[in-house]
Amino acid sequence: MIDDSIRPQLGIIGGLGPLASADFYFKLTRMTEALRDNEHVPSVILSVPQLPDRTEAILAGHDGPLAPLQAAVATLNALGVACIAMPCNTAHHWYEKLAASSRAEIIHIGDAVVAEIRRSLDRGRVANLATRGTLVSGFYQDRILAAGFEPCVPADAEFQERVDSAIMLVKAGSIAEAAAETERALHLAQMAGANAALLGCTELSVVAASLGDTNGLVVIDSNAALARASLQRLGYSVQEARGLPTVSSLPGDGRPSLRVARRAS
Amino acid sequence: MIDDSIRPQLGIIGGLGPLASADFYFKLTRMTEALRDNEHVPSVILSVPQLPDRTEAILAGHDGPLAPLQAAVATLNALGVACIAMPCNTAHHWYEKLAASSRAEIIHIGDAVVAEIRRSLDRGRVANLATRGTLVSGFYQDRILAAGFEPCVPADAEFQERVDSAIMLVKAGSIAEAAAETERALHLAQMAGANAALLGCTELSVVAASLGDTNGLVVIDSNAALARASLQRLGYSVQEARGLPTVSSLPGDGRPSLRVARRAS
Repeated sequence: MIDDSIRPQLGIIGGLGPLASADFYFKLTRMTEALRDNEHVPSVILSVPQLPDRTEAILAGHDGPLAPLQAAVATLNALGVACIAMPCNTAHHWYEKLAASSRAEIIHIGDAVVAEIRRSLDRGRVANLATRGTLVSGFYQDRILAAGFEPCVPADAEFQERVDSAIMLVKAGSIAEAAAETERALHLAQMAGANAALLGCTELSVVAASLGDTNGLVVIDSNAALARASLQRLGYSVQEARGLPTVSSLPGDGRPSLRVARRAS
Repeated sequence: MIDDSIRPQLGIIGGLGPLASADFYFKLTRMTEALRDNEHVPSVILSVPQLPDRTEAILAGHDGPLAPLQAAVATLNALGVACIAMPCNTAHHWYEKLAASSRAEIIHIGDAVVAEIRRSLDRGRVANLATRGTLVSGFYQDRILAAGFEPCVPADAEFQERVDSAIMLVKAGSIAEAAAETERALHLAQMAGANAALLGCTELSVVAASLGDTNGLVVIDSNAALARASLQRLGYSVQEARGLPTVSSLPGDGRPSLRVARRAS
């Protein structure tokens, strides 16, 4: 099926959404300690943006995304990858079923994130900026508690509305506006007593480098955490991601905003 | 081999280098007129950074990169893609042999670039910031002449040295320094009478959004040209890439520079 000379080590289930995957690929590359091409991890990104909406499926209690996710896992296994990364938090709702059908290890983004939080914080309250699907799925609450941190859920309904809006804005390509919405959600999280805030949706990872001063609040990027875990799992040396792209101050991002987004996956 | 629910339309031969591919994926996504995930092109990126150095092979007169490139084309065909993009200019030296072995159309980056130049310019002198391999291969000179433009080759040896250095710096992850080297090469091109300058190596596409004022010189980005051609070929609506990432002003890009790079592919 694939020649050994080009066999990928890392399989990536991408397109959920596409900009979040591009951000993951960019961070994976920037975080690899490398001076030339051949020091980078050979990989394959299967970008499947036509997958049914993950949050919608979780909230409705159906498994629509599972079959195409399993198909993606099967294809990546057929290509001979050693492990698989899925830069979409919400899709991890189906992690156990996917892992059970995969020869290659699937790196859980939740485990990667907990390791990333521990790099910055020993204890404290962690807010999660995630889709409603991820929150209902519950895999972050479990992991954050088990690691000795305290989940922080802002009571103000505006918090989740800002998060949903930011995610939809990234999917619509309006990154600068998404960064502004994310900053408002971070402010509400800090007001609610959070010491750290997890960008627990990879769409929000896209705006991570464009955020203004967070006033001491520790911000955890789930895409960067997954990139670090992937490189470590495969034995590559990891460096801090230098010069990540920022787009907040660029002109021409004047797409109409989608203020009240009810759902995002 | 692959389930119809996740079949990719666009196959991408990536990793040549990895940052150039991430830039291509980012631009492909940003240039798609889309408000939600499922409006994006399903795609697969096969990132093969272990491929032998392309420029080295061309200058030495051997075909080392051909077999793995053919293997990549075969794999993408097996995955059922409708067409293939290769965001590496130098690798197009082997275009004819690859196209002959591919069911899926391979979009030639040189054709995409000529179309891109025509969007900005009717006539004039075009300088090419490319690897020594691409220049020896000659496919750009042919196409630029055939399209009614005049190739402009700065006589100053410093021009190609700056280009080589910029390419190596991007591969080493030092984007801000690469942008400075690229600006110096652009200045030399303009001094030599160029009306337009082609970033004819996709490593240089990575710094395109980080360049300062080019003093009226039209700058053509080969990755953006290839992304536009790919989307058009597949029937997707294209928008100008808004808010492309820039990294020139970010701190922490203090990697030691590689000033005198002799080769880059």
